Amino acid sequence: MNSNSVSVIGSGRSSVFLIEYLANYCQSNSIPFAVYDRDTSFITHAIHPDFHQFIHLLDVSDESAIEAVIASSQLVVSMLPAFMHPQVALLCLKHKVNMGTASYVSDAMSELNEEAIKSNLVFINEVGLDPGIDHMSAMKIMDELRENGAVIKGFKSYCGGLVADEDDDDNPWKYKFSWNPRNVVLAAQGAPAQFLENGKMKIMPYQQIFKHPAICEVANYGRLEAYPNRDSLKYVDLYGLHDVEDMVRGTFRKSGYCHAWQVFVELGMTDDSLVLHLPNNCTMADWLNMYLPESDAELKIKLKNFLNLSDDSLSKLDWLGFFSTSPLPITTGTSAQILEEILKAKWVLGAHDRDLVVMLHQISYVVNGEKCLLESTMVLKGESNTHTAMAKTVGLPLAISCKLILENKIKAKGVLTPVTKEIYLPILEELSRFGITFNDTVSTLS
Amino acid sequence: MNSNSVSVIGSGRSSVFLIEYLANYCQSNSIPFAVYDRDTSFITHAIHPDFHQFIHLLDVSDESAIEAVIASSQLVVSMLPAFMHPQVALLCLKHKVNMGTASYVSDAMSELNEEAIKSNLVFINEVGLDPGIDHMSAMKIMDELRENGAVIKGFKSYCGGLVADEDDDDNPWKYKFSWNPRNVVLAAQGAPAQFLENGKMKIMPYQQIFKHPAICEVANYGRLEAYPNRDSLKYVDLYGLHDVEDMVRGTFRKSGYCHAWQVFVELGMTDDSLVLHLPNNCTMADWLNMYLPESDAELKIKLKNFLNLSDDSLSKLDWLGFFSTSPLPITTGTSAQILEEILKAKWVLGAHDRDLVVMLHQISYVVNGEKCLLESTMVLKGESNTHTAMAKTVGLPLAISCKLILENKIKAKGVLTPVTKEIYLPILEELSRFGITFNDTVSTLS
Repeated sequence: MNSNSVSVIGSGRSSVFLIEYLANYCQSNSIPFAVYDRDTSFITHAIHPDFHQFIHLLDVSDESAIEAVIASSQLVVSMLPAFMHPQVALLCLKHKVNMGTASYVSDAMSELNEEAIKSNLVFINEVGLDPGIDHMSAMKIMDELRENGAVIKGFKSYCGGLVADEDDDDNPWKYKFSWNPRNVVLAAQGAPAQFLENGKMKIMPYQQIFKHPAICEVANYGRLEAYPNRDSLKYVDLYGLHDVEDMVRGTFRKSGYCHAWQVFVELGMTDDSLVLHLPNNCTMADWLNMYLPESDAELKIKLKNFLNLSDDSLSKLDWLGFFSTSPLPITTGTSAQILEEILKAKWVLGAHDRDLVVMLHQISYVVNGEKCLLESTMVLKGESNTHTAMAKTVGLPLAISCKLILENKIKAKGVLTPVTKEIYLPILEELSRFGITFNDTVSTLS
Repeated sequence: MNSNSVSVIGSGRSSVFLIEYLANYCQSNSIPFAVYDRDTSFITHAIHPDFHQFIHLLDVSDESAIEAVIASSQLVVSMLPAFMHPQVALLCLKHKVNMGTASYVSDAMSELNEEAIKSNLVFINEVGLDPGIDHMSAMKIMDELRENGAVIKGFKSYCGGLVADEDDDDNPWKYKFSWNPRNVVLAAQGAPAQFLENGKMKIMPYQQIFKHPAICEVANYGRLEAYPNRDSLKYVDLYGLHDVEDMVRGTFRKSGYCHAWQVFVELGMTDDSLVLHLPNNCTMADWLNMYLPESDAELKIKLKNFLNLSDDSLSKLDWLGFFSTSPLPITTGTSAQILEEILKAKWVLGAHDRDLVVMLHQISYVVNGEKCLLESTMVLKGESNTHTAMAKTVGLPLAISCKLILENKIKAKGVLTPVTKEIYLPILEELSRFGITFNDTVSTLS
C-alpha cells in the first residue's frame, strides 16, 4: 500500500459512478486508488472491467483492517452505512487523512470539527443527491437572489428516486428499488416531521405523513405527490432563511403511492420493534389477516371495510399478492423485515429498466416590492440498471468534491457541507457536463 | 441502622397501604422498619402521624446511600421507578437481602434468578394489582378448574384504575389520575399489541389500539371499554394455557375515552421523541393548530373535519381547553410532556373524590363435554384520595408477600412471581379480609 492512496470503503449500488470517476481521475494523475468491501460481487458486475484491478475484498467489521487502509491513504471515501462514518472519521483524524461521505452530518461527526481544523483536514459530508445536490443547487439560486437584493420568503424542496415512466407500467405502485429497500420501508418513522406553513410551525406524526401528500406539478415532467421529511426547520439556519414563512422538504412518489403505503402504516406492517415467529407455512393472506379484526368476511372485503380503502390501494395490495396463499418469503422477523422481503421480490429494477431522479425547488421571494416564484427542476433518467440516475447523482458530486480536496481547492477545513460557493460552484459546473442540470422558471405572484 | 431492617425505598401514591401495613407488622414483631425517599412530603401527608417516625429523606440517585440502606436490611421493597429495580437487586444479592417489587420481571431481573437461588433469597415481583392480583386471582380459578378436569379454552382479563361514578360527573372523560400520569400518556406506545382471537394470532399497532376498544359488561358495575395490552401471548406459557383459542389482556376505560384519546394519538400529541421549543406566549389553540393543516377554517371545525370527529370527542377536547387562548402550562418539552401537564391540571383526583379499581377475568373452558364461561369480577372503591383503591390493590399484596418472606413461608427461592399456590393462596386469603374480593358467575355456553 502507498501512503497517498485514495480509498473507497464500501461499494453498494450508489457507488458505481463514484468509483469509475475516481478510478479515471487517479489513473490520469498517477495516484494509487483502491476500493474495499466485504462483498465485491455487485461492483465487479457493475463497473467496466478495466477497473476490476482496483477492487479488493476487506472485512469492514474488522477495525484493524480498516485502520490499515486509512493509514495508507491521503483521502478516504466512506460508502459504509452511515452509523459507521464516525469510526472511520476517528481513524482519519488519527492518521491525518481527508474524508468524504454522502451522508448527513451526525452529532458524532460534528464533534470532530475542531480537531479536523487543527489537523488541516477536510471531512466533507452531505455531498450526494439528497443531501447534496439539493443543498448546492438551492444555495446557488438563493445566494444569487440575495446578491440581487431579494428576500427569500418561502422554500419548498422535494426529491425522489423513482422509475422512468416507460419502465414502470408493469407495476401499479410505479415504484421500484433503486437504493436501500430498508430505508424505504422505514421511511418517516421515529420523530414527527416539522415544517413551516404560512408562517406557522406544523408538526406531523408518522401516522399522518402518507395520508396527506402534497401534489406538485413538475415542469417538463408532470404531477407527483410528496410527503414531508423529518426536520425541515433546521434548514432555516443552515440556509440562512430567517424571513421564510414556508419551509418544507419532502420526498416524491408517483400518484397513488402514498395512500396505498398508508395501508401498511395503519395496519402496523412497517413496525420494526416486535420480532414475529410465524408458522413455516404462513401464507401472505394469513399474515395480512393477523392485522385485521376476526370475522367471517372475505379477506379483501374485511381489509377494505377496516381501513375504508379505495379500490386503487386495494388493487396495489392485490398485485403484491396479499390476498393469495403464496408463502411468506420469511417467517421470522419484524413486520418491517417481512414487508421488505415481499417488496424486494416485486419492486425489482428489471435488467432493462431505467430509474428516474426528480428534484424540485420552489423558492418564493420579494425583490423590488415584487413577489416572485422561482421553480428549479432536475429530471434525470438512469443509463442502465447499474448505472442508475441515483448512483450518478449520489456518486458524482462526492467524486468531484474528492477531486477538489486532492487539488487543494477547498480552503475551508473541518467538518464541511457543500453550502459555500468555493465548494458548490465547481461541483455544479462539472455536474452539468455530466448532464446533471436544472431548468429554472420564474413567475410573478400577485 | 440495624442489620435486620425492613426497608421501603420510594414512597409514591401507590405505597400508602404498603407502608402502613409493614409499619404495623414490624412494630408488632419488633422488626426495625424504615421508608426512604428523596421527597417525603406526599407520604408524610398521606399516612397516619403514628408512622411519621419511619419516614427518612434519602437521595435515591446516590448508589452508596442506597447500598447503606440495603446493607442494613433483611428485606427491601423497591417502589422506585421500574428501571431502577435491577440496580437495587444487584445490591441485594451482594448483601444477601430479600427483595420485593410490584413491577414486571425485566430481563435484567430475570438474569439474577440463579444467583438469588444460590444465596437462598426471595426476589418477589409482579405482586401488585396488574401485574399481581390479576395473576393470583386468575391462577386460583384456573388451577381449581384444571384440578376438576376442565380444559381452559379462552382467557380474557381486563383491569382499570378509574374514578367512582359519583365522583366523575364533573369530567366528561370520566378519568382522573390515581397513579403515574406519564404512564397514562405513553400507554400502548412501542411494540404493537399481540393476542389470540378465535385461535388466530392478532397484531395491533399503536395507531389502532384506541380505535377499536372492546366493550365489556362487568357484573355489579356496568359497561366499560377496553384496549389491548402489549403482549398477551407470553401469558400462554406463564399460565400454562396451551389449548386457548382466545388470549387477551386489556385495560379498562369508561365509555367514550378511547375514541377521544385516539385524537391525541392521530394528531401526534403523545409523541415523546421530539422536544418542542414553543414561544412563551403559545396558547392551547396555537398548539393544537400546529398538528392541523393550514387553512382559514375555525379551529374546532378544522379539527372535526381533519379527523372526522364525533361531537363527543370534540366536547372532551373543548373541556380540556384546546380551543381556548389559555397559555400552555409548559412550552419546552415533547408533545407527550406538554399533554401530560395539561391533563394533570384537569384530571385531578379531588379532595373528596374516590377512585375505583375494576378487574374482570372471562375464562372459558370445557369440562365433561360442556362449554362454560366463568366471569370473575372485582370492583373496589378507594377510601379517600390518598387511601385509594389503587394504592390498596398495589400495596397490600406486596406487603403481605413481604410478611410471607419474613415468616419464611415462601419455600421457593430466586426471582419469583405469585403464580404458585404457596404464594397466591395466603395472599388472596388475607386480601379478602381487607375487602379485596372477587365475585364469580358461571354460565353454560351453547
